[in-house]
Amino acid sequence: VVFHTNTLLFSSPPFPVDSPAIAHGLQTVFQEQEMTETLHNTEGRGYLATYVGKNGRFLIVRVHSHGLVTIDLQSSEGDDVVQTDNLLNLLEEKLKDILKGNIKRMKRLPALMRGAQVDRYWPTADGRLVEYDIDELVYEEDSAYQNIKILHSNQFGNILILNGDVNLADSDLAYTQAIMGGGREHYEGKDVLILGGGDGGILCEAVKLKPKMVTMHMRKTCGDVLDNLQGDCYEVLVEDCVPVLKKFAEEGKTFDYVINDLTAVPISTAPEEDSTWEFLRLILDLSIKVLRPNGRYFTQGNCVNLTEALALYEEQLSKLSCPVDFSKEVVCVPSYMELWVFYTVWKK
Amino acid sequence: VVFHTNTLLFSSPPFPVDSPAIAHGLQTVFQEQEMTETLHNTEGRGYLATYVGKNGRFLIVRVHSHGLVTIDLQSSEGDDVVQTDNLLNLLEEKLKDILKGNIKRMKRLPALMRGAQVDRYWPTADGRLVEYDIDELVYEEDSAYQNIKILHSNQFGNILILNGDVNLADSDLAYTQAIMGGGREHYEGKDVLILGGGDGGILCEAVKLKPKMVTMHMRKTCGDVLDNLQGDCYEVLVEDCVPVLKKFAEEGKTFDYVINDLTAVPISTAPEEDSTWEFLRLILDLSIKVLRPNGRYFTQGNCVNLTEALALYEEQLSKLSCPVDFSKEVVCVPSYMELWVFYTVWKK
Repeated sequence: VVFHTNTLLFSSPPFPVDSPAIAHGLQTVFQEQEMTETLHNTEGRGYLATYVGKNGRFLIVRVHSHGLVTIDLQSSEGDDVVQTDNLLNLLEEKLKDILKGNIKRMKRLPALMRGAQVDRYWPTADGRLVEYDIDELVYEEDSAYQNIKILHSNQFGNILILNGDVNLADSDLAYTQAIMGGGREHYEGKDVLILGGGDGGILCEAVKLKPKMVTMHMRKTCGDVLDNLQGDCYEVLVEDCVPVLKKFAEEGKTFDYVINDLTAVPISTAPEEDSTWEFLRLILDLSIKVLRPNGRYFTQGNCVNLTEALALYEEQLSKLSCPVDFSKEVVCVPSYMELWVFYTVWKK
Repeated sequence: VVFHTNTLLFSSPPFPVDSPAIAHGLQTVFQEQEMTETLHNTEGRGYLATYVGKNGRFLIVRVHSHGLVTIDLQSSEGDDVVQTDNLLNLLEEKLKDILKGNIKRMKRLPALMRGAQVDRYWPTADGRLVEYDIDELVYEEDSAYQNIKILHSNQFGNILILNGDVNLADSDLAYTQAIMGGGREHYEGKDVLILGGGDGGILCEAVKLKPKMVTMHMRKTCGDVLDNLQGDCYEVLVEDCVPVLKKFAEEGKTFDYVINDLTAVPISTAPEEDSTWEFLRLILDLSIKVLRPNGRYFTQGNCVNLTEALALYEEQLSKLSCPVDFSKEVVCVPSYMELWVFYTVWKK
């Protein structure tokens, strides 16, 4: 089932004609289209009429005070796109006639598609509506921990979406490069610890750089796809990273690089979610503990627009048992449709 | 005037309850909210009811066949966002109760804001709906040629929008680098010709690379901001580039690099628009004529998804009076929210 909504929007300075005159001017179109009108009483909140037409078409005309006219057309899958486009064209022409010369802005937005087999709308971390060019659902499963989806985008390739959050796409080498230090680090002969990183992107890039040893911890949710990945210079541990970090800290095992690629910083900026921040701080504390004096800790932060969440994260950095300094970098990750902040943290 | 639309979408397998039962289940919410109901006759195209409430709120409930429920809430500027969110929360909870265990997908989309002072919706070249984080209209004017807008985005900085097309933002050094050959060229001591490039980005980067001479042609629409830009190694000509290109071709004046940064390839892929393609071919032909044997011609193409338009452009390349070869590169320009194709063209 696909269900389209088209939006047509007119903005004009205080009207030269009144709302009923606008409605009256559009009448001929509705009559031609054999649409049934209903007038709604808004108690002084502008003119509001709805029209039911062929094939389940439903049209909403509102004339707001201060000169805004909105026309919404809802149509169903079986409907003819050319016909519905034509209907909007006719209404557009009529309204241009009626408001002649007094239109400040006119805009028709791309139709919102709902109920389609494949969902194209994956809002950004800062809550903006964005439509992806998704054409296929490659994989979906509810694990014990989260909803896992892989969707195919024509331009970005396969996109991993966890609980509705875009995590990584084939196009996003920029993410992997950024969370490894933006190409400014020398991995050769170094000991590297990756927390999370279930997609394997960091491990894949890291081994190219001839490190001494990469230890990678993944949560069980990543399945057994990477279980066989064990080689001369890397080891994949499919288990919770916290107990392992604790063991390393007790044993005094240390690393040149710790890369935290666990699922994102909670988007909520509510400070009362103490437990989430405490959990993040626990991982941070343990990570810094297993970091060598000249080592670097890398992680992704959040989108640039969520300044409160970023500030809260930086606050955690100031509360660690070992004092640290940090720098940040803003990176464009293609499939994110928003700029993203990455952190580098080191011991003072 | 700001006008919000919220969308709530439920998809469930063939219903365990019928449409009137769903509508009946929601009744208590509408009664509590003192909303006036209208039932619409869709002639067998599912259940459709609308509700007018306080502050001009208007709610549309549709139950489609094959198990799709959509709820749209239109609210006005004066309305309380917490209250309207609450209303949607109540409906969401009720529907979860009614459809218990049979919900396949549930989604609430960010509200579509219409009639706001600053427009946040600038669809991509391939026609997708994307919302920008626009917070200010910096400049707007209708020139003799086009509508010129500069909007401020919190993350991308100022964005130049020509006739509704996102052209370039402060964040988009990637565009300038790509249209100059992706950092693989040596500009030192070279003769460079820029067609268009009114924003000055290419010129700004080019002079850093110590070329022999940069000649830049801009259309008059760019105003006189750059009129004073004349230096040891560059010259800005504010005039139509076609007569100048013809003069150069007649005089036998040639360049190492020709960079075409005129306004974009027409998005329409209709082959009957011969005149547009012929115009583009004229510029291409003249550009290749003034190109030295080992010279490079750079230009931006289109978004990766408009494959037909790209194919048409490449067809033009095969029709030039001087045979050429070309390569292309896909680049992520941050403010575009879609991947973009750039061309390098050279004489065979």
